[in-house]
Amino acid sequence: MWQVTEDDLAPIAIGAGILGTGGGGNPYIGQLRARQAIRKYGPVSVLSPEELPEDAKVVCVGGIGAPTVGIEKIRDIQSYHALRAIEDYTGEKATALISNEIGGSNSVEPLIPAAMAGIPIVDADGMGRAFPEFQMKTFFVYGVPCCPMAISDEKGNSVIIRETITPRWAERLARATTIQMGCVACYAVAPMSAEQVRRTAIPHTLTLARDLGRAVRQAHSDGSDPLEAILATCPGRMLFSGKVVDLDRRTTAGFARGTVTIDGLDSFTGQRMVIDFQNENLIARQDGEIVCTVPDLICAVASDLGEPVTTELMRYGLRITILGFPAPKLWTTPAGLATAGPQAFGYETDYIPLKV
Amino acid sequence: MWQVTEDDLAPIAIGAGILGTGGGGNPYIGQLRARQAIRKYGPVSVLSPEELPEDAKVVCVGGIGAPTVGIEKIRDIQSYHALRAIEDYTGEKATALISNEIGGSNSVEPLIPAAMAGIPIVDADGMGRAFPEFQMKTFFVYGVPCCPMAISDEKGNSVIIRETITPRWAERLARATTIQMGCVACYAVAPMSAEQVRRTAIPHTLTLARDLGRAVRQAHSDGSDPLEAILATCPGRMLFSGKVVDLDRRTTAGFARGTVTIDGLDSFTGQRMVIDFQNENLIARQDGEIVCTVPDLICAVASDLGEPVTTELMRYGLRITILGFPAPKLWTTPAGLATAGPQAFGYETDYIPLKV
Repeated sequence: MWQVTEDDLAPIAIGAGILGTGGGGNPYIGQLRARQAIRKYGPVSVLSPEELPEDAKVVCVGGIGAPTVGIEKIRDIQSYHALRAIEDYTGEKATALISNEIGGSNSVEPLIPAAMAGIPIVDADGMGRAFPEFQMKTFFVYGVPCCPMAISDEKGNSVIIRETITPRWAERLARATTIQMGCVACYAVAPMSAEQVRRTAIPHTLTLARDLGRAVRQAHSDGSDPLEAILATCPGRMLFSGKVVDLDRRTTAGFARGTVTIDGLDSFTGQRMVIDFQNENLIARQDGEIVCTVPDLICAVASDLGEPVTTELMRYGLRITILGFPAPKLWTTPAGLATAGPQAFGYETDYIPLKV
Repeated sequence: MWQVTEDDLAPIAIGAGILGTGGGGNPYIGQLRARQAIRKYGPVSVLSPEELPEDAKVVCVGGIGAPTVGIEKIRDIQSYHALRAIEDYTGEKATALISNEIGGSNSVEPLIPAAMAGIPIVDADGMGRAFPEFQMKTFFVYGVPCCPMAISDEKGNSVIIRETITPRWAERLARATTIQMGCVACYAVAPMSAEQVRRTAIPHTLTLARDLGRAVRQAHSDGSDPLEAILATCPGRMLFSGKVVDLDRRTTAGFARGTVTIDGLDSFTGQRMVIDFQNENLIARQDGEIVCTVPDLICAVASDLGEPVTTELMRYGLRITILGFPAPKLWTTPAGLATAGPQAFGYETDYIPLKV
């Protein structure tokens, strides 16, 4: 067990920004919101999955929407409202919260309702990264029901997705609701048991995000290379480095979708990488050839500081480096790939695991 | 109290088709569905609002979607699923059902879950006609909460709109959900009390629909004028008669929207009527001048047989007569007009009551 204090938030924001592969919501804004909650309600305890009591009721909370909208229409305490809505619906009180995805602001989203409710969070999440769609969680891949789930907005509207024939239908209905709510909302899923969390969650990812952020900051202090510090903390590979020369980004159907084009610099001079994204980076092509796809992580960081460049902040002229990290093993099974492999996003290519 | 038997369904379909002002769902298909339910489960009792026991729990059920889609994707027992979903959510068992709107197939929609559940329906509805949007019910105008409400589709998905800041937000969220469900779904609203039904419903409208249909059929037997029979049963006025010369109808944003243009025949020769509709007929202009608007009823019937011509069946060349009927009094108060007057549909004109 450890405690999330205000001091942990800046490193978590950096680490979660990297692991978010572009999405998960703006980590800086998430950090500010979590800071306000901790300042008001006190630090939040973090339990590893092994530390959960057997009778734990663990509610997954998260933000849903387009990150491009999330930086203009900043979330408030919708995740607390969604938590109360699902508790009210199920008649069960949450004893701990868990992040839906460790990427971006969703890494710290549970801190806000946890601080308000005075309950711990779990050092784990449902993706080990970020993914754009609700059903793309290891929880649901491995048999946790995705419904009932509650969605709340900042105005006071709340909806329960009560029952769906597939997890993809939950996404479809939740997305349509979110779009009406202004493309930014929060949700909470009916409680999981301790056994379900241990079996289906990606463990220790909040610690990983914090450690990644600490490594980057340490490199800043030392004057050492932050990119090396990242790769030493989380095994991965540099895929490309260069300058953003084109960005096609639309907020459409509830997502930020598009492509970013990077012309190589230094050892990549004369080469070009194009990355497709749907909130998160999905597929990276170098000179037309696929070099990395979901569920592996395609992460953009500033070439100088190693800090994450998320989808909503991507812009022409940025010097960025693309890092690739292998997906958590729960994603590379046939069931995992069926939910979040390249074909789940409409690509014809098979998943070829990133070699590190 | 009376009982709806199979023999009542054909007259109800005619009467409800007229009162539906173009919408409410195809009455013929509604009739077939209700017939199947009554054949399988037996006749359904109809209680007038005065006959409701004081502890009644009355659930409003209805179809939602575009009538153009409803004739291709025919409803099954979604309203029964929605009823069970709202009962499950509220923990209260319905003791009677009430129609959301007497127009079109929605007049008989409650018969299906009522027959299945073995409970009566109420001889009343929430509109005294049909309106395109969920919040446009006298129940909600006069203080009955519009939430929680359940929406179910034919596939097995169900959603609860739990809480909204206004009834219009319930419409917005329900419509987005319905569109995802394939533009055809059914809903059920949390139970009303007997007092609420007596105070806020339009009474005796199922009887009115049946009597209108009987009058039309009687005229067919007698060889008398069915239009006169309609106006003798329900006081109103002939507004126009002619041939449909243009129809602009799109299924968009979950509705069938557009205009129908009618060139006059007989005493209307040389004149033209244009009617705007959003599922239901909203405003009728004769040679550019407004002659009837919501909430008054603008009803299209076949000029020869007096049978209703609903929005999804309207087509070029039909000989139709437009009848106008004054709106129920609950709609012509300031509160009623704020919800369903011309300005609620974006028209600048004030409501000018139809003179009969």
